[in-house]
Amino acid sequence: MIKYKFMYSFDSKLRVRYYETDKMGVVHHSNYVRYYEYARTEMMLHLGFSYGTMEKEGVMMPVISVSSKYIKPAYYEDELVIRVTLKDLPTAKMNFFYEIFNKDGELINTGETVLSFTNMETNRPCRPPQRLINILEKII
Amino acid sequence: MIKYKFMYSFDSKLRVRYYETDKMGVVHHSNYVRYYEYARTEMMLHLGFSYGTMEKEGVMMPVISVSSKYIKPAYYEDELVIRVTLKDLPTAKMNFFYEIFNKDGELINTGETVLSFTNMETNRPCRPPQRLINILEKII
Amino acid sequence: MIKYKFMYSFDSKLRVRYYETDKMGVVHHSNYVRYYEYARTEMMLHLGFSYGTMEKEGVMMPVISVSSKYIKPAYYEDELVIRVTLKDLPTAKMNFFYEIFNKDGELINTGETVLSFTNMETNRPCRPPQRLINILEKII
Amino acid sequence: MIKYKFMYSFDSKLRVRYYETDKMGVVHHSNYVRYYEYARTEMMLHLGFSYGTMEKEGVMMPVISVSSKYIKPAYYEDELVIRVTLKDLPTAKMNFFYEIFNKDGELINTGETVLSFTNMETNRPCRPPQRLINILEKII
Repeated sequence: MIKYKFMYSFDSKLRVRYYETDKMGVVHHSNYVRYYEYARTEMMLHLGFSYGTMEKEGVMMPVISVSSKYIKPAYYEDELVIRVTLKDLPTAKMNFFYEIFNKDGELINTGETVLSFTNMETNRPCRPPQRLINILEKII
Repeated sequence: MIKYKFMYSFDSKLRVRYYETDKMGVVHHSNYVRYYEYARTEMMLHLGFSYGTMEKEGVMMPVISVSSKYIKPAYYEDELVIRVTLKDLPTAKMNFFYEIFNKDGELINTGETVLSFTNMETNRPCRPPQRLINILEKII
Repeated sequence: MIKYKFMYSFDSKLRVRYYETDKMGVVHHSNYVRYYEYARTEMMLHLGFSYGTMEKEGVMMPVISVSSKYIKPAYYEDELVIRVTLKDLPTAKMNFFYEIFNKDGELINTGETVLSFTNMETNRPCRPPQRLINILEKII
Repeated sequence: MIKYKFMYSFDSKLRVRYYETDKMGVVHHSNYVRYYEYARTEMMLHLGFSYGTMEKEGVMMPVISVSSKYIKPAYYEDELVIRVTLKDLPTAKMNFFYEIFNKDGELINTGETVLSFTNMETNRPCRPPQRLINILEKII
């Protein structure tokens, strides 16, 4: 069993938009990857860290890998909870874990993304901003 | 000057998502049409009317026309206000007017959509559901 | 009757993608605005003009206004023809007109967009690149 | 080493659309999942099998899982090749493997999706249509 030194979760809510559905009548699977991104933004802002500001300061975080498991469908107008979990302090990479729940509290999707800190000038991997480290160390 | 018998506005908020931006660094223009749709859903739900339920009852509202004027750009993480305004009770058609404001209160976009009530079985135009009329008549 | 000195049309084809449909079973209306953009790119490349290269050279073309009329629905796997028509040489603005046809040749959508040439450094309107003018003057 | 009885690959081309880029200046990662879907449709149609027709006949294929690795970015106007590979005949599930190449032939992304055959009336797993099996058995 992996023992994580660190564990932090944050829940964001969103309502499924009509354009996110497809002809199967449910949320198109590609949108979950977008929900993950939405939830990362909301978690970061909640922690007092703006991803947009970080980009202005010259560091971006391209996505290195995504995986997603679809358990149950989501429907138009559904209120979903997107839970993001951090299990490690970031190194040159940062791992995010996701669970999506419908309003009955059922787990409908799980996922994982790996992002890398990248210096926008050199286009090379870099360390996470110290300010982000400071914030994350406080919430351990 | 047109004298409207009816005038109702509702404001929804949303935060710009990363995937909604494009390589120009701003919200891609196609997303404003999606913001309009989001705001219609929110307004309707606020009024106690679920568009999703109406579809289950056999009436859908395809979009007949859209127009949009782009005044200023919107950026990632911006909190926008989408104002929807109704100026008429619906007939077989329903007109929605939109104004989008950024967090400085600047008007950044205006738009208009016309939707038609359509019986999903016959695929023909139909009258708006009486329940919707009742709700709208109350808020005049 | 307006007499245009100039008239040029170009047809692009595309096949409707699954994710472009919505729970109504048809192409979501917001995607037509994206089809217009696709058709502009294809027309420009056909004329030997890369919009991407123009951006690298410091000129971008934000969309100033869009309008669209939806006549008939389009479905998953449909092959559509997007016709773009130019009726004027560009000034600081450039107008594009669109007609979309399904494979039975039926007109299913018409639209219009206005784009403005913008200097990316000053963020102010500018003249269209001379190279684009030269190309367009040849095809009158 | 796994020995596959079966191996079939098909290449589709597409050009990156402007709206698929994000403020990082590259194709947004969520769109690769959409490229996979596009490539499945193209492969199926090439084999004489319409996914749309299968849905009309009452069988749909929801996505059960997706994974994607991002190796290099893709840019607006890039012509990409999406290679889909089948390594097994489908059972109640069907696995697709993807490789995306840019026009220099560089591998920029790999991915995998699992889809399940589902009876649209009962909403339960079902066998793949015999017509699809026949087609796939011919190309072994």
